[in-house]
Amino acid sequence: MHATAKELPIIAADILARLRAQSPRVHCITNSVAQTLTANTLLAVGAVPSMTIAPEEIGGFMQRANALLVNLGTFDAERQDATEVAIEAAEEFNLPWVLDPVLIDRSAVRFMNAKKLIERAPRVVRLNRAELVVLTGAKAEAGAVAAYASAQRIVIGLTGPTDLVTDGARLATIANGDPLMAKVTALGCAESALVAACLAVERDAWCASAAALLIMGVAGELAAKRARGPGSFAVEILDALYALDRDMLVAHAKVS
Amino acid sequence: MHATAKELPIIAADILARLRAQSPRVHCITNSVAQTLTANTLLAVGAVPSMTIAPEEIGGFMQRANALLVNLGTFDAERQDATEVAIEAAEEFNLPWVLDPVLIDRSAVRFMNAKKLIERAPRVVRLNRAELVVLTGAKAEAGAVAAYASAQRIVIGLTGPTDLVTDGARLATIANGDPLMAKVTALGCAESALVAACLAVERDAWCASAAALLIMGVAGELAAKRARGPGSFAVEILDALYALDRDMLVAHAKVS
Amino acid sequence: MHATAKELPIIAADILARLRAQSPRVHCITNSVAQTLTANTLLAVGAVPSMTIAPEEIGGFMQRANALLVNLGTFDAERQDATEVAIEAAEEFNLPWVLDPVLIDRSAVRFMNAKKLIERAPRVVRLNRAELVVLTGAKAEAGAVAAYASAQRIVIGLTGPTDLVTDGARLATIANGDPLMAKVTALGCAESALVAACLAVERDAWCASAAALLIMGVAGELAAKRARGPGSFAVEILDALYALDRDMLVAHAKVS
Repeated sequence: MHATAKELPIIAADILARLRAQSPRVHCITNSVAQTLTANTLLAVGAVPSMTIAPEEIGGFMQRANALLVNLGTFDAERQDATEVAIEAAEEFNLPWVLDPVLIDRSAVRFMNAKKLIERAPRVVRLNRAELVVLTGAKAEAGAVAAYASAQRIVIGLTGPTDLVTDGARLATIANGDPLMAKVTALGCAESALVAACLAVERDAWCASAAALLIMGVAGELAAKRARGPGSFAVEILDALYALDRDMLVAHAKVS
Repeated sequence: MHATAKELPIIAADILARLRAQSPRVHCITNSVAQTLTANTLLAVGAVPSMTIAPEEIGGFMQRANALLVNLGTFDAERQDATEVAIEAAEEFNLPWVLDPVLIDRSAVRFMNAKKLIERAPRVVRLNRAELVVLTGAKAEAGAVAAYASAQRIVIGLTGPTDLVTDGARLATIANGDPLMAKVTALGCAESALVAACLAVERDAWCASAAALLIMGVAGELAAKRARGPGSFAVEILDALYALDRDMLVAHAKVS
Repeated sequence: MHATAKELPIIAADILARLRAQSPRVHCITNSVAQTLTANTLLAVGAVPSMTIAPEEIGGFMQRANALLVNLGTFDAERQDATEVAIEAAEEFNLPWVLDPVLIDRSAVRFMNAKKLIERAPRVVRLNRAELVVLTGAKAEAGAVAAYASAQRIVIGLTGPTDLVTDGARLATIANGDPLMAKVTALGCAESALVAACLAVERDAWCASAAALLIMGVAGELAAKRARGPGSFAVEILDALYALDRDMLVAHAKVS
């Protein structure tokens, strides 16, 4: 009954169409470096971002939101408080949320915070290879990642030269993207926000995560064709996300 | 004796020339998503931004500033303290200030903060339709907006597909702009900072507000002609603001 | 034995090559306006930025870092605490650090903070003319700057239409750059981060500072040839930094 990897390009195209039709609201507790690009990424696909970390304001925003992103870059005291309030609201309003454990390989304190947050049941964790190795204590290899996802009952969205998305039972690999994506700060953070946006319009968290990574990967490939370096690439990827349509997405998808 | 809507394109061109000649300093207590675009918008028209929210630093900056912006996006505890210090300094040094009550339709707490701040007598409130409806409790229709502006003794700068600027007695509508302006985060916030910059060089707050909205609207139209999406639009609007001259402004103005 | 100004173009080319080969990690306590451009500038030359200001996280990041930037723009309470923790870690791990005393001419409190930080022995202070005059209490003239650098045992990197780099004994002037550099917010802040990156791969702080200012100046000149205003300039300078090679750097360098 469940969707399979083969169907993902069509599913992603449907999810993209829903983003534009429904304009879901995504509240983002995210780091100060990523806020602008994250907001512009969400706007480019039709979603509506909000970003406040003031604890007394978050309740109101979450009440009107459709999904939540918690990103641990620059995880200062105010963002820690904000995260607690936001997750409680997500539980109260039954909203899906995504965790992005940025650079947990660099700070033991941040790693411990990430471990605690995973116990609060995010639907998806989006991370890179170095972060995954620290988080799971295992190799960044499909079987180990699937086992971790299954044990934690979450979806893992592992990004890199090839992306891997698994809920334990299903596994998709996405070979889209471009090396310039690693040369623009916070593009991974923006991608996690896109996962949250997709979760807002698609209950199957594996499909939503794979769709987000595929959308970003194809946009990245198209942007790289026009870019002359990381400065123009950051501009082009927003234009590419905005212009992306069903045909382009399906034609360029490299999913298996 | 007062300027009328018909004269606004010429007045806006004069104000733009004064921005470039006088380089007014605008202190901005603004949200973390908007800071970079706001600073670059001010620089593009010749103004000089400062952005600190450290309470002990604000006095020094305000002493050397020519106008103040208070923007409520991400209105955290530190920004609340900063706002109090900055408004007291504005009162002490008799500097005009602008309030941008971002997304007060999403948080009752933020709405209450906005209500209190309006009692502190900003010269101008710049907002969108949803924010205005919540703030005034009335329809976003010219008569109701003018009545509110008159009662509060402020200028309202309402932006949207058509902008409306009123001090209660006078009313201007500005039909410039482009739908892409809603696809770049914080462009409205930057527009509010531009209002503050114009107030620094023009005492008539209605003229200053209309000039700022006209300058941004014309720059947006020119930018949209070159842009391929929201990424390139954000780049092009800064280039357009920088290149804007008297003839272009007057030729493209759609004011009534 | 020491390198001289004449050798700087070749030295800068070597340092740039080392940045790309070694990918040094630069931790930045910097203002919220500058964070994104600073991170993208570091990525464009091959360095790896981190930006957290959470005191409990900084230790972990500094342990794995190769240099530190302390920038005083928006120097709020949290950044003041972060700076203390970061400098202690820099001392413990013997990492070089750079101070950027942004706008100390606008706030007496910030000026006092800068004075105290200089006693903590940064290797380099990167600033503009107005900031230098306030900091040194002397004219922005080569002899006075060299005397200050010598007395403080630091390198001064003074940027402006012509840059001046001195450790007291040696003095380089760099005539690269473009007026548009002053129209993009935080480009000076990003340049200070580039100084920190160069310090991470070059022990001679005078060479490292001159190399950073030369790299940025040449990239700025190349960017200005393609830019139509400050919006496109900000994009082009990142592309230019990314594309910059030994031949371009040596061919365009105006060092004496």
